[in-house]
Amino acid sequence: MERVVLIDLMAEYGMALDEDRLEDWVELFEEECDYRVVTRENAEQGLPNVLMWCDNKNMLRDRVESYRQVNEYNPHYDRHVIGPLRILGEDEGRASFEASYALFQSDLEGNSRLFSVGRYRVEARLADAGARLKSVLVVADTGNIPSLLATPI
Amino acid sequence: MERVVLIDLMAEYGMALDEDRLEDWVELFEEECDYRVVTRENAEQGLPNVLMWCDNKNMLRDRVESYRQVNEYNPHYDRHVIGPLRILGEDEGRASFEASYALFQSDLEGNSRLFSVGRYRVEARLADAGARLKSVLVVADTGNIPSLLATPI
Amino acid sequence: MERVVLIDLMAEYGMALDEDRLEDWVELFEEECDYRVVTRENAEQGLPNVLMWCDNKNMLRDRVESYRQVNEYNPHYDRHVIGPLRILGEDEGRASFEASYALFQSDLEGNSRLFSVGRYRVEARLADAGARLKSVLVVADTGNIPSLLATPI
Repeated sequence: MERVVLIDLMAEYGMALDEDRLEDWVELFEEECDYRVVTRENAEQGLPNVLMWCDNKNMLRDRVESYRQVNEYNPHYDRHVIGPLRILGEDEGRASFEASYALFQSDLEGNSRLFSVGRYRVEARLADAGARLKSVLVVADTGNIPSLLATPI
Repeated sequence: MERVVLIDLMAEYGMALDEDRLEDWVELFEEECDYRVVTRENAEQGLPNVLMWCDNKNMLRDRVESYRQVNEYNPHYDRHVIGPLRILGEDEGRASFEASYALFQSDLEGNSRLFSVGRYRVEARLADAGARLKSVLVVADTGNIPSLLATPI
Repeated sequence: MERVVLIDLMAEYGMALDEDRLEDWVELFEEECDYRVVTRENAEQGLPNVLMWCDNKNMLRDRVESYRQVNEYNPHYDRHVIGPLRILGEDEGRASFEASYALFQSDLEGNSRLFSVGRYRVEARLADAGARLKSVLVVADTGNIPSLLATPI
């Protein structure tokens, strides 16, 4: 798969979340997909704790829908800055890679702070229009993520 | 326009500002250009407030010149980390795209802090030597930007 | 040298450090190499102070080995987010470039903070399997780096 397609995929991933286009973000996934957020501490200790887990696209849709309902209690702006892709495997029509991220949040008064840093581990597949996400594992170095009200990372 | 030309343009954009080569930064723009900094809050509410606005290259030159005169009152180092480009449109000789940024500032004692996060919206044109900036709109999630003494974002 | 090879090199550079694969990080360098960390303040004033300096690969190996022994006193997770490459020179089999970085550290309780921002200045050479690092100069805007216990930047 061409590298630029993967970069475009992650650029849109971050920008869709940051612009509150959560429904567009869901559309980046395949129907059969897996989205999971774990802390690095749990991942390295082999603990099963998961902060967020959707194992198909309908669960992602539900998640976004319920987020839309609680959104009013936690208004904020997200901002992802995603680093270069580290390609783990490439095949015709498939690719797996990692990328570091820093996620900042700003409140409505315009105060910004570091919210989470960590790493994506992604499996992508070539679809008709660009690439789609087969699985995204977010391994967050930052541990104290309030899961209920959080937007996806 | 080739993608790598746009990435080079933004790499130089950030590095010119960070290395205090503000005059080089101005040279990245076309004569007929537009550079504008707004807060996200104002942008989303449709408010006309603008933190910085230069609507041609001579204004950018003036801005940098006056910054050079007040610089002694606010010495600091800038550091931009710019994320992957999200291409919005491409045509022969033209391209528009978005990119997230995180801007850190360090004082002369070496203390660093998050200064601003947000998004660039850029229109670029192919010139003789690489690409040039036709317009840059900075939408800052971070609201409290002291505009008088600030370097460009 | 193809651009993508350089991006892959820096992606692996950051990820090897962040995943505590320090030995893999050392393997990115040539035998005859130079790795140096200086503060921006010292660099701009022409001062000779160097926070970390290894002028061949064996010194890097020693550094990592001694870090492994003191590691237990300063457990933390690193996270690099590296910006786009600014190419300074390219030749068949060689390239020099700069890139901005933000380095975050998280303690084992999962609290993350900005640790260092600055710039890499890199000379790379094409090797049998991808590119290798000939020299890396880290110019840190952030000044207060505790050098003894620090992992490489």
